[in-house]
Amino acid sequence: MPRSHGSEIDTLIQLLAKLPGLGPRSARRSTLQLLKKKDSVMIPLADALMRVADKIVICATCGNIDTSDPCHVCEDVRRDRTTICVVEDVADLWALDRSETFKGLYHVLGGTLSALDGVGPDELNIASLLDRAVTGEVSEVILALNATVDGLTTSHYLAERLSESGVKVTALAHGVPVGGELDYLDDGTLAAALKARSNVS
Amino acid sequence: MPRSHGSEIDTLIQLLAKLPGLGPRSARRSTLQLLKKKDSVMIPLADALMRVADKIVICATCGNIDTSDPCHVCEDVRRDRTTICVVEDVADLWALDRSETFKGLYHVLGGTLSALDGVGPDELNIASLLDRAVTGEVSEVILALNATVDGLTTSHYLAERLSESGVKVTALAHGVPVGGELDYLDDGTLAAALKARSNVS
Repeated sequence: MPRSHGSEIDTLIQLLAKLPGLGPRSARRSTLQLLKKKDSVMIPLADALMRVADKIVICATCGNIDTSDPCHVCEDVRRDRTTICVVEDVADLWALDRSETFKGLYHVLGGTLSALDGVGPDELNIASLLDRAVTGEVSEVILALNATVDGLTTSHYLAERLSESGVKVTALAHGVPVGGELDYLDDGTLAAALKARSNVS
Repeated sequence: MPRSHGSEIDTLIQLLAKLPGLGPRSARRSTLQLLKKKDSVMIPLADALMRVADKIVICATCGNIDTSDPCHVCEDVRRDRTTICVVEDVADLWALDRSETFKGLYHVLGGTLSALDGVGPDELNIASLLDRAVTGEVSEVILALNATVDGLTTSHYLAERLSESGVKVTALAHGVPVGGELDYLDDGTLAAALKARSNVS
């Protein structure tokens, strides 16, 4: 096959194609963009990747992935240390933190219990959560797992385990997403929203 | 604003968001993926970027962006050196070369003539094309510019300038895209396809 560019460029395209949201086609477009913007994007991107890769660490307290341990959440003194929000993944932590509604601490489980995939309590970051819950500093644990079967199973399990520690355990509300149309919602969500209806007058 | 991660990670997200096809949201997802796949993706990607950035060069002969000068196209002895295909951009060169139909050489103009944007012949890689056309080695120049107003204007201009050199000048055919439906095609394409109809029996 004739080649229009060097093998290093092919390697770059293949690596970029591994990123979520970039297929082979957009990886090629991205590579061309990088080639054309060597000084403004390509070299800074290589630097940023190296700098972050050098520093990546998993927070020993909460399981967040960050460039320091304790992570920026755990070491932030302005946060409310009496509340811990339990999430499945770092992506959920980022999402909740972007909403700027919750100012407490987090705990990243690293997944959900799953009989099918053979994930038991020992595979998840659960022991350290129980340890954090009994320190006396924590008064509430908010379960913010995905509303999937595995997520709900894990929430039930955690609620039971945490009940021994005496902290208040809460979970995210189910209901109609803001901006969502009833017509497109599944029956489970509609039933949950009806059941949890509130007075407006 | 509370921060869930270090500023190096923010920098990385912002740089990734500059790639075509990645917005802020997918740049965050990509960054998380990179954080989780440090050894298999993140560090190889940083290495690949650095290695390519070190070597990027514009081919003095044809204007292709590559890791060597002359580029992999110009130095490929298996290619037909009597035909030059003129394209606007390196992306077009890559696209044509992927089709594996054309085995000749290329010439990258770097854009099109544009009165509105103030792009004249001197801003484009035209002088070197005329030089290549008169060497005697070249017998045909294929104009493969985009079928836009500026692309067609540039094709006309090039055809006129090249006519002095005595080489054969051709252009890509206009017509119905393979797999395309007539119903969705514009009138210009349909008219061109009708005008250039061919015998099938």
